[in-house]
This record gives sequence, structure tokens and C-alpha cells, in this order.
Amino acid sequence: MLLKVEMAGVCGTDVHYYRGREKALPYPIILGHEFSVVIAEMGKNPYKLEPHGQELHVGDRVALFNTVTCGECYFCRFTTRRGLCQNFFTWGITAKCKEPPYLYGGWAEYMYADQPKAWMYKLPKDMSAKLNVLVEPMTTAARAFERAFAPGIPAFGEGFGPAKTVVIQGAGAIGTLSAAAAKISGAKKIIMVGAPANRLKLAEKFGVDETINIEQITKPEERIEIVRKLIRESQGPDVVVEATGVPAAVPEGLAMVRPGGSFVEVGHFVDTGAASINPFIMCSKDINLYGSYGYSEYDYETAIHMLYYNRDRFPFEQLVTHEFPLAQAEKAILAAERGEALKAAIVP
Amino acid sequence: MLLKVEMAGVCGTDVHYYRGREKALPYPIILGHEFSVVIAEMGKNPYKLEPHGQELHVGDRVALFNTVTCGECYFCRFTTRRGLCQNFFTWGITAKCKEPPYLYGGWAEYMYADQPKAWMYKLPKDMSAKLNVLVEPMTTAARAFERAFAPGIPAFGEGFGPAKTVVIQGAGAIGTLSAAAAKISGAKKIIMVGAPANRLKLAEKFGVDETINIEQITKPEERIEIVRKLIRESQGPDVVVEATGVPAAVPEGLAMVRPGGSFVEVGHFVDTGAASINPFIMCSKDINLYGSYGYSEYDYETAIHMLYYNRDRFPFEQLVTHEFPLAQAEKAILAAERGEALKAAIVP
Amino acid sequence: MLLKVEMAGVCGTDVHYYRGREKALPYPIILGHEFSVVIAEMGKNPYKLEPHGQELHVGDRVALFNTVTCGECYFCRFTTRRGLCQNFFTWGITAKCKEPPYLYGGWAEYMYADQPKAWMYKLPKDMSAKLNVLVEPMTTAARAFERAFAPGIPAFGEGFGPAKTVVIQGAGAIGTLSAAAAKISGAKKIIMVGAPANRLKLAEKFGVDETINIEQITKPEERIEIVRKLIRESQGPDVVVEATGVPAAVPEGLAMVRPGGSFVEVGHFVDTGAASINPFIMCSKDINLYGSYGYSEYDYETAIHMLYYNRDRFPFEQLVTHEFPLAQAEKAILAAERGEALKAAIVP
Amino acid sequence: MLLKVEMAGVCGTDVHYYRGREKALPYPIILGHEFSVVIAEMGKNPYKLEPHGQELHVGDRVALFNTVTCGECYFCRFTTRRGLCQNFFTWGITAKCKEPPYLYGGWAEYMYADQPKAWMYKLPKDMSAKLNVLVEPMTTAARAFERAFAPGIPAFGEGFGPAKTVVIQGAGAIGTLSAAAAKISGAKKIIMVGAPANRLKLAEKFGVDETINIEQITKPEERIEIVRKLIRESQGPDVVVEATGVPAAVPEGLAMVRPGGSFVEVGHFVDTGAASINPFIMCSKDINLYGSYGYSEYDYETAIHMLYYNRDRFPFEQLVTHEFPLAQAEKAILAAERGEALKAAIVP
Repeated sequence: MLLKVEMAGVCGTDVHYYRGREKALPYPIILGHEFSVVIAEMGKNPYKLEPHGQELHVGDRVALFNTVTCGECYFCRFTTRRGLCQNFFTWGITAKCKEPPYLYGGWAEYMYADQPKAWMYKLPKDMSAKLNVLVEPMTTAARAFERAFAPGIPAFGEGFGPAKTVVIQGAGAIGTLSAAAAKISGAKKIIMVGAPANRLKLAEKFGVDETINIEQITKPEERIEIVRKLIRESQGPDVVVEATGVPAAVPEGLAMVRPGGSFVEVGHFVDTGAASINPFIMCSKDINLYGSYGYSEYDYETAIHMLYYNRDRFPFEQLVTHEFPLAQAEKAILAAERGEALKAAIVP
Repeated sequence: MLLKVEMAGVCGTDVHYYRGREKALPYPIILGHEFSVVIAEMGKNPYKLEPHGQELHVGDRVALFNTVTCGECYFCRFTTRRGLCQNFFTWGITAKCKEPPYLYGGWAEYMYADQPKAWMYKLPKDMSAKLNVLVEPMTTAARAFERAFAPGIPAFGEGFGPAKTVVIQGAGAIGTLSAAAAKISGAKKIIMVGAPANRLKLAEKFGVDETINIEQITKPEERIEIVRKLIRESQGPDVVVEATGVPAAVPEGLAMVRPGGSFVEVGHFVDTGAASINPFIMCSKDINLYGSYGYSEYDYETAIHMLYYNRDRFPFEQLVTHEFPLAQAEKAILAAERGEALKAAIVP
Repeated sequence: MLLKVEMAGVCGTDVHYYRGREKALPYPIILGHEFSVVIAEMGKNPYKLEPHGQELHVGDRVALFNTVTCGECYFCRFTTRRGLCQNFFTWGITAKCKEPPYLYGGWAEYMYADQPKAWMYKLPKDMSAKLNVLVEPMTTAARAFERAFAPGIPAFGEGFGPAKTVVIQGAGAIGTLSAAAAKISGAKKIIMVGAPANRLKLAEKFGVDETINIEQITKPEERIEIVRKLIRESQGPDVVVEATGVPAAVPEGLAMVRPGGSFVEVGHFVDTGAASINPFIMCSKDINLYGSYGYSEYDYETAIHMLYYNRDRFPFEQLVTHEFPLAQAEKAILAAERGEALKAAIVP
Repeated sequence: MLLKVEMAGVCGTDVHYYRGREKALPYPIILGHEFSVVIAEMGKNPYKLEPHGQELHVGDRVALFNTVTCGECYFCRFTTRRGLCQNFFTWGITAKCKEPPYLYGGWAEYMYADQPKAWMYKLPKDMSAKLNVLVEPMTTAARAFERAFAPGIPAFGEGFGPAKTVVIQGAGAIGTLSAAAAKISGAKKIIMVGAPANRLKLAEKFGVDETINIEQITKPEERIEIVRKLIRESQGPDVVVEATGVPAAVPEGLAMVRPGGSFVEVGHFVDTGAASINPFIMCSKDINLYGSYGYSEYDYETAIHMLYYNRDRFPFEQLVTHEFPLAQAEKAILAAERGEALKAAIVP
């Protein structure tokens, strides 16, 4: 199947890859693992690709799950975390682009999807390309939040639960979408700790109730104290989502979360070093800490629902703050790296 | 109610308290929060103390839950973790012994239990004082293991689930009882990482299948590699229980646990400093980390069942390796501190 | 403490009690277990009544949890279901009104709350009496929905999860509030099966997407077929909530729910007879069926949050369709019995 | 791949099929979905069949999962219940035997396994053919019990939790193996309600602590009363497993289970009619009822572990009470139908 790329997002990991920080990648690669595509040419028997058995046609906008899992390793067979698959193929990340048919990344005019085990969700006609580009980061955000509230229960498209109070560390795309996921699920109060001011302002449209600007309140102890005062009755939030990528955010978040609360680590997809963490705080606070790395094929469904059914409630499309033509991909990377763009997109 | 102490255990935290490492304690205190007691004098309306409504009589051996929770704070009212109670009273720890009736600790001939909200389990007649002394550490061990397998489901005496494979860091009383709890719940393979050799030998009677002696295999990387080879198919154990009290054990255990597995932190009831921990490993392994600090009144029930119904399967009484008369309490502390005794007991 | 009743709801069980269908009640009783009250006179040390430790003052509007549980029976001690308490006291239901101080029911100008273990939530100043009257039925509805989505995880004010698709049987107050609870938690599609037309119309303001009028589609098989067509991909809804009180609704709902889905039974608080149910459907559909009877003190918190934080999203106050002065209590009962009123209220 | 059948079990459903009670079957079929097989001839690339990636060789004894799921329907993709697969193939049940290669049932000398998606567990060398024949019924029993204790958490080979008290209705193979599964997971007290006396006697070797013979205590009310007395403190067992196949057992079991307890329906794989069930008991007891029909590929792993690691604790092989050569298959069916055999086996 040949897919026409309408738009492709720039992810924080793309910046790392561009800078060569991930040595294991099979360079050369075509970057781009967040994409909105339209079917340009059909293959044989494509219906099995559509997880609900819907018919696919040329011209359909689809959410192609960006990974193909092997179905045969321990994690595919015996866990619900297919994101831990040992032999996965991901467009724009693990896909070699040195040999034909070359086109296995989203920052291109066309992309091949020639794998019989791929999942390709047919989207409602009124779900825009911008919303589609956000399906992948929304999956990351939704799964992070789900980790906090259904720790032993896989999402499997069946959803998860709300918190009373949530702190989100980080004002990027994942942080902002985590706020929306929390609000959609019924959260009461959401506090975002991050910067800069304009992102915090935008986040208020996505369910954030209070913000703490780390450029203004520069000491972690003060921020911890503010959070404690804002959520006095339980001595801290039920959930903290760490979506900054800065190791030092982890001990700060662990200090914020209420005793017995949950801390989700969704900010470190690339190794950026260690932090000094005291096991005593983990033990004495009776904490739950959940890593949230991979997602599975069925997790896209949750994200699609969240975006589509709440598109009037939250202005998701405003999250795509910058658009660049394919020739200016480097500019897009720089806009992401400098933090100018919340979500930069390549529009081929 | 007046209780005659038959035997009282020495806990690792007692050593810390003796050394004055916990400044917050209301010295002078009578130590001893693990105890087997017999009713010496009855109070009025004692039946409400017995959680199953059994009649209590002078001479009954009882497991007195060592803490009285307030029932009114956030954690008592809105969570299942009463161990996080903000106003708890614990015999042998928070109990002031400066004023009448003084006797609020287990290292004494008698103890007062004059609190109407206490829980006092009447024990089967053939449950020995030694088993009773182990109820408190077994509760800690069982809850630690339960944290790994029923993360969102409180025990409430209803039990929890087995792992396929478990690594236990630490060969002390909590580690050994964790092994028994795991085996009772159906675990397949249990590996203990610790020292010295005689403790590892004893642990084999409590369900441990393989041992790694850290005095012989001194490099963490080698131990991690051995564990990986022993549990090759899933790249590591489903569960790691950290019961050492050494901060550096945490990153080692996080390296051992399989992707998607669970790590339980039950070794740091006292602050012994920070460790260098990489958030990337938490995120990319999609880990579950559970602190296990407090236990609740109903958790004693699980421990009592485990000890009583499995007393023929595991030689629990052998865990009490040393006994000392009250006058030699200091010797008991030293035996615990030097690691000579697995579980030292005071016999008044 | 003396409470001034502002408004009290008429529940379906009140009708049963009025008709004498529940023989076990300690007649004479003052009915009324759904009420909005204001503190008229203070007792000593009232702060322990407020579960978050807020100060209470004369004039405060409070949500008094309508039951006092004993804290000592098996269910209070060993389960999270204090609604199963064996020795509970409920205003307006189990409260004898033959002896002083008589006033233990909501259909009165004043009510006594003289029990030290009562829970009395102080409400936000802008939470109206009508919203307060709905706290009790909202608790019933929210817990029913929570049973479907967090089967092993007690709510404890921490919330629960959404479904993709929900069928609600019954267009009464519980059914309509269940729809709101589902939507607040992120449900995608909600179908209500009930009557009459004006109630179904109103339900659309509370998140119901599709309605099936049982006065028009009179055959169960046809209704089952319509539901299946509306939710074709999974062969039925993820959740069915039975809130009709009619035994025959149970086999109909079991036929509707998708294989592996959840059925919640919240419609039979009074014995109205048996239904013919085939165990084969339970087994072969791999069903989850949850009874939802009692609620616990902490469950009120969830309902208060849901009502208060969503009062601009859903017109909850419209659910109180009829108001009657105290002298016309019988008229209120008849309005409820005949189905004229969705929620009739007594306004003393 | 060609498999040599060593032994094949006779299941209650085989009797129903033999009597033609299931019209939907693609007769003619070769019965036999419980089997122990040895690899007779190898196919190409067989290693993917072995879920842990172990090498397969001619002569290996394997546990072939008796079903091949499609991997493409709603239930395979979006739930953890692959036993609900809409397009499954099961040896000995759905497999047509009219066309080549014909041999798709266990009651034969050889069986074909030519499906690339099959799962074939290589067994330990010291796991006998009789234990292997029990893998399928043990999977049914273990999953039934797991349904009660990990309602929202799929087994995925990771196991589940114990009850304090369990009642098992039915003294057949599933009932007896359910008792073993409960005991392996730590259950305290197990009561079996069934007949005849010799089966109840045998069940005592599998963890059953008390038995109620329905041939002696013939009135359900009396049996309910006995159970209540045996488990007085919680007013009934935490779990009831219905494994009789008799519809009337369902209301009896619902009357036995404690308020807030769990009832598992694993006895009705074939439609044997309805029972009269009162929704009031479901609602007012706040019950959990779980159907347990299908199992998934990974569920075999749990059963294999349970049988293998507990083969010295429970005399599993004694459950195969009768053996018949292939030519006497009809006799085997009759022995099962008349209840003479607990588990009859065909030995080709």
C-alpha cells in the first residue's frame, strides 16, 4: 500500500535522532513517526489492516499505527505491552531507508506500508489531518495517564479512570495532551509545572486549572511547597506525570506526589543521565511509580476517540503551532529544539 | 487491658532507634513493636477489639495489631492505606513512656492496651508464641509481595497473586518471609541475592530455589547477568523485592527486573541516603515500582493465615535464631546489628 | 447537631416503604434519605464529622452521608464495602422515630444528627440545595458505573474509568445520572432504553446519544437487535446498567451486553420477584455481572465532585421536576409512583 | 506437522456432541480436544509455534493449544479474551474431518497441526502424558478461579490470587482441579458440594477441606445453612465456583456466596436451560458474577506451571480414572456420561 503524507509531526526524539544521540538507529533513515496519511494506492486484501474490519479505499484518511510488532516474542505473546516487542519495526525510527522501496518515514511525500500485520484505522470523514497527526502523541499521553489509574488493567481501548488531582511536569505536547486526557476522564484539579508562559497559557485551554512557571519560581522546594498548599487535604496530588525529559524533575515530582499516590515517568525516551533519588521517599510514601514507554496497537483507538469526541471541547488543532514545507525540515527541527514550536509539523 | 509479653522481636529499625538515628521519636520509649502477648487482665467490653467478634478471655494468646490508627485523617478515611495514618500510635515506636501507665512497648514484662480502637486477633490455640512474634514481619513481607501483584487492589485479607519468577534482594527476615509469601501464592522460581551463606542456606527451606551470594559474586553487573541467564525467556524476573536497606540495591534491582515487571521497595524504613537512578531505565522498561511502607489492621489477618496454615510446609520457628532475657536486650540489639541473628527475640 | 432541611427527595424505595412492601422497617418512621440540610445548631467537637477536617459553622450547607456504619462488623473491617455494614443506621429508613428526639428522617423541618461517627461534607458555597439533594442518587449512579469499570478497585474518591459504549436500561433518576457519570468519565456512545418519551428527551441533555423507547419498540428481541446494530463492531455495548426495577430487564440486558462486557444490576433494592435467566449465556459470553447495592461514606465525595465540577455541562437541577410542601408529601409519593415526576422533592 | 497422540481425554462436552446436542458442529468430526501428543514429523520453521522460542524436535512431548485464533476479529485485537475469537479453529470441535488431511481430532492415532499461528508448548522431560492430558481442563479450572480474583487483570501467565474461603459446586474434573488451583494460590478453606462419595473422597487429596454430599443432604436450603455455619464470620465464602452444569445450582450458589463475594459460572458450556434467579439477590448482595468460557493461548502456561510444579503436592494423575483403547471410544463416552469415570482417557 502506498500512502500520501499530508502532515507529519516533529517529536522531541526526532531532535535527538537528528543530533545523533541514539547510536543504535539504522542510518540513513527518513524521520517522521507521527503522521497523517491518505491511501494513495491499494494493496491486495487490505481489509485485515483495518482493525474494525472497515473497508479501505483510495483517498481514505487513516491512522497507521506507526509500529509493526512481531507477535512472536515474549512480550507480544505473554503481556499486554506490545510496545516492549523485541523485533518491532517503526516507520521513521527503525526503518532502513537504504534499499528499495526506501520510503519508510513520515517526512516524505509518500510512505510505504507493505506489512501484512500493520494496523490502519479508518478515520471519521470529519477528523482533520491535524487531529490525525496528534494521534501518536495523544496515545503517549493517554497511556501515561492510564498507567496511573489502571495499573494492572490494560487499556485495550476500554479506557481508564480519573484522578481527583493531577500535577503535570512539563508544558510540551505530551504534558498538554496528558492534561486533556486527565480532564476527559473526569479529573478535578490539574496543575501544570513548566515553562514558558505562553505554553502554560495555552495549556489552560486543555483542562489545566493552575500553573507554576519554573522560570519565575526557580527553586524546586518552593514549587513543592506551592503544590502542597494547593492540594492541602491530601498532602499532594493523586498523580504526578513527569513529561519534561530532565532527570532532576523526577525527585521533585516524587516529593510532590501525595503519600500513596502515583508517579508516571513518561519523559525519558532517550537516556539523558541519572538523578539522585532517595529510596526512603519511595518506601515511606508507599508510592506507585509507573514507567510509560511503549504503546500497543489498540492504544491508538483510545487516542482517536479522545481527540475526535472531544474536538469541540478542546482546541487540539492549536497545538500544531508551526508548519514547514518538506524542504525546511531542518528549520522544523530547530523550532522544536529551541522550544519555539509546541508541535512543529512538516507539510509535504 | 493488661498484656503479658511472652516474646518480642528485634527489628532492624530497633537498631536504628537504639543508635538514635530517628530524631523524631518521643524518647524515652520502651522498644518492641513485634510481640507475642497473652491477656493478663481484661478491660470492659473487650469484644470489639477482636475483629471477628470472638470472645476474649484472660490467658488467650492474641496478635495485637501494633498500631492504632485515628480513623479521621485523609488516609484513614479516603484510602485503603491506613498505614499512612497521620496520627497513629504504635507500641514500641511512637508511644511515650514517661508518664503512667508507662508500659507501651514490647520489651517489657507487661504492656498496656487501653485504646478502644485497637485490633486484637485471637489466635488458634496451636499457634505458638514464635509464630505470633513473626506476624508483624510477615505482614510487612506479605504486603510487599502483594503490592507487586495487586497494585490497585487492597489486600483486605483477601489475598493476592503469584508470580512466575521472583528475585529477592536481601537475606534477612523480611526477605526470607517474602520468599515464603511468594511460594504460598504460587510462585514458580525464586532467586535470592544476599549474604551470608548460612542465611541463603536457611532461605532454601522457605521456597528459595536459587541463591546468589554477594560475598562471592561481588560485582553488581555479574549478578545482573546471572539473573538474566537464570530467567532468560522474559529477560528477567517478573518481580524484584528490595529488602536490603542499602540504597545501591535499588539501581541493581531495577536493572534485574524484566521489562514491564514490578519492583517493590520495602527496604528503606529509615533514611539511609540517596542512590543514583536513571529515569530512562524506569521509562524505557515500562516499569512498575511500588513502595511498601505501612500496613493496615486487616493486613495482619493475611499474615496470620499464611503463618498458621503453612506452618507444616515452612519451618517458620527456625527464623527466630537467638533468644535473650530482658536484661540482655542490648546483646540482642548487637546480635541483630552484626547480622549474627536473623531474628533475635527478647523473652521476658 | 440540629439540621434544617431545605429539600428532600422522593426515592423509588420511599414508594415501596409507603406501600408497606418492606416489612422489616421499624415503623413509625419519618421517610427521607435524600436531603439537603443546613446546620441549625452545633454540637461539641463537630470537626471530626467533616471528612476533610474543615470547620463547620451554623448556616453551612452540608451533605450528610445518610448512613452511619458500625465500623466493627466484618464488612466494615475487612472489605471496602461499608454499604454492607451489618449494623447500619440510615436516616429515613432504619431510624426509629417513636422515641425522642424523634426527628431522624428528611421529610421534616429539622433533623437530628447526634452520632459521633457520621460524615458531613461541607459543600462549596455555590453548590445549590437541588444539587445537594442529588448527591445521594448520584452516588448510587456513580458507584453503579464504577462497579463496571473498576471491579476490584474501590472508588475511595479516586474515581474510575470510561467505557466506549454503554446501554442504560431505565429512564429514571438513577439511569439519567448514570449516563452523566459515564459521560463525565469519558464514555463515547450512550444508549438509553426506557420510557416515556419526555424522559428520554431530557436524558439527551445528560450525555445520552441514542434512545430506544420501549413504549414504541415493545418487543425485547427488537430492542436487542437495534442495540446490536448500533454497536455492531463489538457485538454489543461494553457496559449495560440495569436501573429499571423490573426483573425481566435482566435477561434482556444480558442479551444486549457484548461478549466479555459488564452488566451492572442497580435496579433491585427491593425484592420484586425472580426472572428466568440462562446460565449458559453467563458462561458462554464470559460475562461480568456486578450487583451495586450499598455505597460507602467516601463514595459521596465522588458524587459531590461529579455534580459540582460538571454543573455547567449538565443541567442537573432540571432533574428535580416537581416540588411539594411538607403537607403534600403524599402527593409527592403519588407523583413518583405514577412516573409523573422524575425526581419529586419535598420542600419543608 | 504431524503429531502422534499418546492419550486423549473425554470431556463433558464430548458427551453432548456425541448425543448431537450441539447442532452447529461441522459433522463428521473426530472428537478429542484434550490430548497429549508427541511430534512425529516436523514442518518447516516450527520454532515460531513454541511460544518461548524453544527448539522443537521429533519425539518432543508438547502441549498443543487446542485452538487457533484468528488474530483479526474484535476480540482478538481489542480484548485479552481470545477465547471469544469469532473465527476460531479447535481440534476435535470445529475442525471438519471430511476432507484431507482429515486428522483434526484427538481421538486418533495421529493429528495434523498445519496452522502457522498454533501455539505448541514444549514440556519438561519429566512431565507425563497424563499430566499433559490434564493441561486443558486445568486451564479451564485455573481461569475460572482467576476470574474470581483478578477480574480486570488478564492472567497472561502471570497468575492470580487466593481466597480465604471457597465453595466449589461439582465434584467432576473441573471442580477438583479448581480446588487444586485455589490451594496452589493460597486458599485457606475449601468446601466442595457434590457427589458421589468417592469423588468427594478423592477431592480431599486436591485441597478440599470439607465436603457436602448432595446425595445425603438433598435440600438446597440445608446445604446453604451448612455452608453458612462453616464460614460464619463472613456470612459465606469469598468465592463460589459453579462447575456442575445444572442450572439450579446457580441460585443455590448465589445464596451461598458472602455479600460482596464472587460467583464464577464455569459449568455451562452447553445450553441446558434457564434457572429462576432473583435480581434482588444480585443487587442487595453487591455480588460479582463472572462467566468463564474461553481461555487464551497464554492461559495454557499457567496450567502447565500449576500441574508441573505441584505434581508432588497433588496426585494429579489419579484423576485419569479410566483408560480405553481407541476402538472402545464409545465405552469411554458412556463411562463419562454415567459418571463412572472422573476423567476417562482414550489411549490410541
